[in-house]
Amino acid sequence: MKSGGKKFAVGVDFGGTSVKLALVNAQGKIVAREKFVTADAASQVKWLDAVAVAIEKMLAACKLKKSALAGVGVGVPGFVDFKRGFIHDLTNVPGWTAVSLAAKMEKKLGLSAYVDNDANLMAFGEIAFGGGKNLKTAVFLTLGTGVGGGIVLDGQVYRGAYSMAGELGHISIERNGVASPQGRGGLEQYIGNRRIVEYAVKLLKSGRTSKVEGLCGGDLDKITPELLAIAAHDGDAFALEIYDYVADCLATALASVTYLLQPEAFIIGGGVAASGKILFAPLHKHLAERLSPHFFTRIKVLPAKLGNDAGAVGGAALALASQ
Amino acid sequence: MKSGGKKFAVGVDFGGTSVKLALVNAQGKIVAREKFVTADAASQVKWLDAVAVAIEKMLAACKLKKSALAGVGVGVPGFVDFKRGFIHDLTNVPGWTAVSLAAKMEKKLGLSAYVDNDANLMAFGEIAFGGGKNLKTAVFLTLGTGVGGGIVLDGQVYRGAYSMAGELGHISIERNGVASPQGRGGLEQYIGNRRIVEYAVKLLKSGRTSKVEGLCGGDLDKITPELLAIAAHDGDAFALEIYDYVADCLATALASVTYLLQPEAFIIGGGVAASGKILFAPLHKHLAERLSPHFFTRIKVLPAKLGNDAGAVGGAALALASQ
Repeated sequence: MKSGGKKFAVGVDFGGTSVKLALVNAQGKIVAREKFVTADAASQVKWLDAVAVAIEKMLAACKLKKSALAGVGVGVPGFVDFKRGFIHDLTNVPGWTAVSLAAKMEKKLGLSAYVDNDANLMAFGEIAFGGGKNLKTAVFLTLGTGVGGGIVLDGQVYRGAYSMAGELGHISIERNGVASPQGRGGLEQYIGNRRIVEYAVKLLKSGRTSKVEGLCGGDLDKITPELLAIAAHDGDAFALEIYDYVADCLATALASVTYLLQPEAFIIGGGVAASGKILFAPLHKHLAERLSPHFFTRIKVLPAKLGNDAGAVGGAALALASQ
Repeated sequence: MKSGGKKFAVGVDFGGTSVKLALVNAQGKIVAREKFVTADAASQVKWLDAVAVAIEKMLAACKLKKSALAGVGVGVPGFVDFKRGFIHDLTNVPGWTAVSLAAKMEKKLGLSAYVDNDANLMAFGEIAFGGGKNLKTAVFLTLGTGVGGGIVLDGQVYRGAYSMAGELGHISIERNGVASPQGRGGLEQYIGNRRIVEYAVKLLKSGRTSKVEGLCGGDLDKITPELLAIAAHDGDAFALEIYDYVADCLATALASVTYLLQPEAFIIGGGVAASGKILFAPLHKHLAERLSPHFFTRIKVLPAKLGNDAGAVGGAALALASQ
């Protein structure tokens, strides 16, 4: 990756529950961490104070001066105008509508600051130092409660004309499918964690049987994608069928993205992706069915490697690359 | 657009039926045209000879020397490796598998030559001199027998990691939809010309009635999208419903592309798009249903302006921009 003289940067993963900070070196290794509870820094002033304190602590722990830092990259859960470092609004975090966060951070911290959508930074982190290392053009997805995405083209985050691109969770896989505020048939409405569970519970209530019923102690409300994964790894036909369905929904969207963008690879992270081959094997199979050989033979599907650190590492990577 | 010293270029639209050439000036205006029948130049050698003769004729007609030309850009119906100017193979044109066309043209013509997918060049032509003039980031679609596409990001054709990106006709709009060699539910399987007609005929045979039955003299085999458009413009409820269906299928794919790439605009050309408001009005309506306001308010849908000249103008525009 391109890099100026500074050898370290700070990444900030601004989540609805907690704010995680990482001091990262030029090889992408986290050398110090800090964290605070989002609700404990409910105002913008408190948040900036907490970030400043956390950065000082990390620098002290590593015996580094602020001048060693290339800058700070912050990933936020919502829409931003990247060029202006401006937050339009955040999902699930009140009090952050129309905030010029990068400018406020630069003033408070005396460091170059970059504010981006969290999934964009996860994508950049995975390309710079994770599952997509050495790739130039890749599409990242994170599978969780929602389905987030980020696009890296020619080594740069692609943000679109108005800085909101990469919303892979809203790609429609069924024209007359599930309605949501984002449209109809959006991928997230099929493979978001809760949707997977709903789908499984509906089938179980219709008379299907599965080892997962034992794993949840007979309380279907306690089923999670993780319990389904345990059952699937144990050879449970029903759970394997659920993961096959999830993989096919995902393959439908990824085939469309492949025809459109032809990236070198997809990098897939998040809880459901951590289930490993029970997702990746049927995903491979369904992509083969859904792509012509010209496209199928040229596309890779790779697991993400940075886990929960992807956002913070990506923020730091962006600051390192931007100096 | 970026441009070196040369003020003219040649664009070549290599179609399955005819090869159309245009001599284009730096303002995108066609100052001379030539054309030959593809079948009359069936070998590569004959094709190169015919192109050379056509270029000489156009230069003579405008009293220009070859030294006035920035180069030649050729759009072909198939997969190419743009960087190498190499044709993998062409759809519906035999004898053009694995051809280093750019190198052969440079040798034969003594001009810089560029070979690209035809829809990519149509996209570039529309952005440079047509419906997308002054845009930087736009997605082009052409609606015909097939549905072709091209993507321009930051003023450059985006070709993907292996030069095959932009296949918008294969975006899946129905996970369990119509099967084809390219997968399942591909947009082209719903709004390609023949598919539109099949859909209409099926409904008419099931007992629906329409003015189009009169327009085709009662012979349903003679129905075309153009006849349906005539009926729709005449207020025929059935024909309007067909165009509403086509618009909704198209909106499904365009909403997905918007969430993914957030271009400034879509530029839509081809026969079905020439039908005007009977397509564009419902397309606008369905996009509003299928996009959140953040995205819907920022996306434009524009008609293409270059018609059948888009490919040749785009080829010339690429040669002008590449000098």
